Amino acid sequence: MRMRRTDLALEARELWQERTGAVTALPGVEARDTTWEGIPVNTVKVLDRRGEEALGKPRGSYVTLTLEGLAGREEDIFQRAVRAVAGELTKLLQGLPPGGLVLVAGLGNRAITPDAIGPKVHENTLVTRHLVRQMPEHFGDLRPVASLAAEVMGTTGVESSELVRAVCEKLQPVCVVAVDALASRSLKRLCRTVQLADTGITPGSGVGNHRMGLTRDTLGVPVIAVGVPTVVEAATLAADLLCTDDLPDLNEGRELLVTPKDIDSQVRDLAKVIGYGLSMALQPGISLKELELLLS
Amino acid sequence: MRMRRTDLALEARELWQERTGAVTALPGVEARDTTWEGIPVNTVKVLDRRGEEALGKPRGSYVTLTLEGLAGREEDIFQRAVRAVAGELTKLLQGLPPGGLVLVAGLGNRAITPDAIGPKVHENTLVTRHLVRQMPEHFGDLRPVASLAAEVMGTTGVESSELVRAVCEKLQPVCVVAVDALASRSLKRLCRTVQLADTGITPGSGVGNHRMGLTRDTLGVPVIAVGVPTVVEAATLAADLLCTDDLPDLNEGRELLVTPKDIDSQVRDLAKVIGYGLSMALQPGISLKELELLLS
Amino acid sequence: MRMRRTDLALEARELWQERTGAVTALPGVEARDTTWEGIPVNTVKVLDRRGEEALGKPRGSYVTLTLEGLAGREEDIFQRAVRAVAGELTKLLQGLPPGGLVLVAGLGNRAITPDAIGPKVHENTLVTRHLVRQMPEHFGDLRPVASLAAEVMGTTGVESSELVRAVCEKLQPVCVVAVDALASRSLKRLCRTVQLADTGITPGSGVGNHRMGLTRDTLGVPVIAVGVPTVVEAATLAADLLCTDDLPDLNEGRELLVTPKDIDSQVRDLAKVIGYGLSMALQPGISLKELELLLS
Amino acid sequence: MRMRRTDLALEARELWQERTGAVTALPGVEARDTTWEGIPVNTVKVLDRRGEEALGKPRGSYVTLTLEGLAGREEDIFQRAVRAVAGELTKLLQGLPPGGLVLVAGLGNRAITPDAIGPKVHENTLVTRHLVRQMPEHFGDLRPVASLAAEVMGTTGVESSELVRAVCEKLQPVCVVAVDALASRSLKRLCRTVQLADTGITPGSGVGNHRMGLTRDTLGVPVIAVGVPTVVEAATLAADLLCTDDLPDLNEGRELLVTPKDIDSQVRDLAKVIGYGLSMALQPGISLKELELLLS
Repeated sequence: MRMRRTDLALEARELWQERTGAVTALPGVEARDTTWEGIPVNTVKVLDRRGEEALGKPRGSYVTLTLEGLAGREEDIFQRAVRAVAGELTKLLQGLPPGGLVLVAGLGNRAITPDAIGPKVHENTLVTRHLVRQMPEHFGDLRPVASLAAEVMGTTGVESSELVRAVCEKLQPVCVVAVDALASRSLKRLCRTVQLADTGITPGSGVGNHRMGLTRDTLGVPVIAVGVPTVVEAATLAADLLCTDDLPDLNEGRELLVTPKDIDSQVRDLAKVIGYGLSMALQPGISLKELELLLS
Repeated sequence: MRMRRTDLALEARELWQERTGAVTALPGVEARDTTWEGIPVNTVKVLDRRGEEALGKPRGSYVTLTLEGLAGREEDIFQRAVRAVAGELTKLLQGLPPGGLVLVAGLGNRAITPDAIGPKVHENTLVTRHLVRQMPEHFGDLRPVASLAAEVMGTTGVESSELVRAVCEKLQPVCVVAVDALASRSLKRLCRTVQLADTGITPGSGVGNHRMGLTRDTLGVPVIAVGVPTVVEAATLAADLLCTDDLPDLNEGRELLVTPKDIDSQVRDLAKVIGYGLSMALQPGISLKELELLLS
Repeated sequence: MRMRRTDLALEARELWQERTGAVTALPGVEARDTTWEGIPVNTVKVLDRRGEEALGKPRGSYVTLTLEGLAGREEDIFQRAVRAVAGELTKLLQGLPPGGLVLVAGLGNRAITPDAIGPKVHENTLVTRHLVRQMPEHFGDLRPVASLAAEVMGTTGVESSELVRAVCEKLQPVCVVAVDALASRSLKRLCRTVQLADTGITPGSGVGNHRMGLTRDTLGVPVIAVGVPTVVEAATLAADLLCTDDLPDLNEGRELLVTPKDIDSQVRDLAKVIGYGLSMALQPGISLKELELLLS
Repeated sequence: MRMRRTDLALEARELWQERTGAVTALPGVEARDTTWEGIPVNTVKVLDRRGEEALGKPRGSYVTLTLEGLAGREEDIFQRAVRAVAGELTKLLQGLPPGGLVLVAGLGNRAITPDAIGPKVHENTLVTRHLVRQMPEHFGDLRPVASLAAEVMGTTGVESSELVRAVCEKLQPVCVVAVDALASRSLKRLCRTVQLADTGITPGSGVGNHRMGLTRDTLGVPVIAVGVPTVVEAATLAADLLCTDDLPDLNEGRELLVTPKDIDSQVRDLAKVIGYGLSMALQPGISLKELELLLS
């Protein structure tokens, strides 16, 4: 039996509650709901082994922002969403040595729209490493940031994680931020939530099913994972509808995904929010207005 | 109650059989299965009013080709698929006045991958009207063909069918071929079948839900419809799984689609098969090899 | 002998001055330099036959804005440029019947970067015709605007101007705004100027060399032309360098163009300025901030 | 004074002959003209220091293929061009340890059309490393090939050559093939020639002006360079027209390029020829027909 798949800690917790019918607190797990300029933020902390086993997620902090209004036309939702992403990322990034290089890795396949969130965040991230090195007199106040889109194995012959590892060994960053599309279990979360975690990327997660993962264990430095659920696997939807834990094979093994009709524009908008938020968190000295000029 | 949606006559017939439990022939409908170079071809003919009512489709011929191997790597599947599309289209197009202009209209939204089949067929169609007019001494043997991608209302402010009608009134073609993405009911037909029909495009059909339709009644000339099912609406899938005729609202009215993971490359491949097959049917004097040079 | 080619009235005037060595005013032509929020604006008015003959341009007003800073990072240059384009277009559009439909036509070839300015302005124009018709109670205050990208003959078999004419006959607009890439004579104007004219598009102009033109004579309504010089023909550059009026054949008739290295991003930025400016001019009730939300 | 720029050994030799008026052989340089299935092939060998000084190119073999007919519609030109590229690359690659990994690096900026040849060759290269590793029983006969598009510094913060070096250190290939767009001096060579060299990529060459180069010295393994001239710098054209060695500043330091009008489709076609030819040279057991199925 294949398990119903979710990459979101929030959903793993819901699934646990459904399975167990539990109403009491989950042992080894702390959860908290707050808001940031009106944007709902849920934080799940997996504290110990019991929590890891209950949720099937390694210990660490998982922060989920709900960006409901982005598709709509609320006037300042883009700016608020950017600041909320920046604010929560700032907390996860705190403690980094000042002036240390941060490497952003956009994972996923540019040619498959719901898997393109990583490469598109890469395009919306302010890179500064070359400026800091070439003109320290002008750019010495910036944190050096490098960024790459690690393409998928079918187009490179190399696992994304191998590529990222190779570049890490060469550039020696103090932290890696890995951005990826996720599978969700819930239709209503599609393209509406962003999960930030200080646990890195676990093997087997992501729309492209990364085989090796990117974690502090494999890279030697902290790895912040930024994930956006852009698909529900059709088999997961079917299992939910049929109230079963067995995943039906809907179509002879062919992979079928459920996505919003306007996935192309939603991925573009979300990548911009995340790229800008990440750039703000990495460069506290630059305002959002300046970022908009630099990245447009 | 919203009905489960299918744009395929083949599926409308299956739905009728399920609903009625009928095993006998459907009155007013003829169906036949053949093959073309190994490619399965199903022909449904809606003959009269009883057939129209049973299937909810106007009378005419609906030819469905099943292109199973296209995603695979069978050596000559592309060529066989092109010839099968060309062969069946030739039958539907027969009787056109020689030398009369044919207008190809690619419907749908270029920016939404599963809806882009129409614009992409337009790009893969050999246009000749300007050549025949400017250099009749060289190109007089070709049938004049014009082609356009009729964008969607949200980007033009105009219904696709109004645009096509405007161009028809100006160019006075003897026939219109309208190409569009369809909604299917069956996951296994996604991106694997092509439906050809001599009935034109019915209002309310297509991924983009055309409001007015393109038929002989509205355009004054025969309209051949070429459709490819590229999506199953998530609500249709849910109704099928739950064995109900009621369409559940899965997500507060947001449109959710089920597509194959590799929809981008599948739409590209299918558009090439259809564009080449259509061009062969319209220009019997040009070989497939020559077409490949002219269209690449 | 082929003439050195320019589509800009400003340059036609310079060429006349060079040829004649004239320092006095050109008969039948008025010229004036002003600024708009710091943006230089040159207006050339061709008043009569003498002016037409001297400049080789039909009588009318030609307004050229110089957008030097756009490529740079001046903080409010985008907003100022949009308002300047909107302000000058408002003057050219004045006198249109209120509530009358305006049709925007983006000319040129999407697949050739320096010729893609028209299709890209089309993408950045707010279309409203369908909203005004479907929900007059909500959108009745807007001017109905329709927009289309008229593809080139090689991909449609139809002249762009025929397509625009067909749509005009159907939709009966009160004015057409035609947007196109232009050939310039001057390297320093490439992607840095926008020419607005109330004369329509003359046959033989534009990067794609339109054969028939779009003017009040052919369309029956006023035609505002918006043009951006994105190329200098290599032969024109050579003739200028060699101080000759003869255009050398640099490469066996193959067309060679001089463009800025960053033509892709410049065309994208300019199309946004023009699309937003045009939308502001057409909808005086909508602020730039609202437009940014509606068009992003 | 800035020198007129050419990345082609063929042109460096012509420039030397012009400068010196020499009609005799160039010391330390051997040149030879042959054909391959009708395709002209020029080979320049820089033999020693005198040759290096005369041509300003490091010693090694420079093979230039002239692909005149590619833009035209000669029936088998694509196949012949692929086989010619494959044949000449096979010679340059000979002596590699069987079964040793080859790394293909597509250099240049995807977002600037004439600089996109490297990334596009990457997309047209058959990668096999993952297949050979995961299913040696099926793919053990293939040479392992990995490929990457090394983006430019402005989008990554890292020099392309640093990225390639990092990946080399990790993957330990036996050879690197680096593909790049070149600057030419001659309009007639634009998009019509391919230069293959066993010298690697020299610092300062390429449309993007690589600062560090990729050579056996820096990577520790042989580096085959594949280059296509896609631009003439406008200043080089001007100097040639004015018969001067001084490069004029045509436009206040802004970079201006001369390209064919149809550069988008030419870059696409050339990338396909090179990717297919390279894949054939690396996998002698796979036929061109099979490659077309695998790479389409």
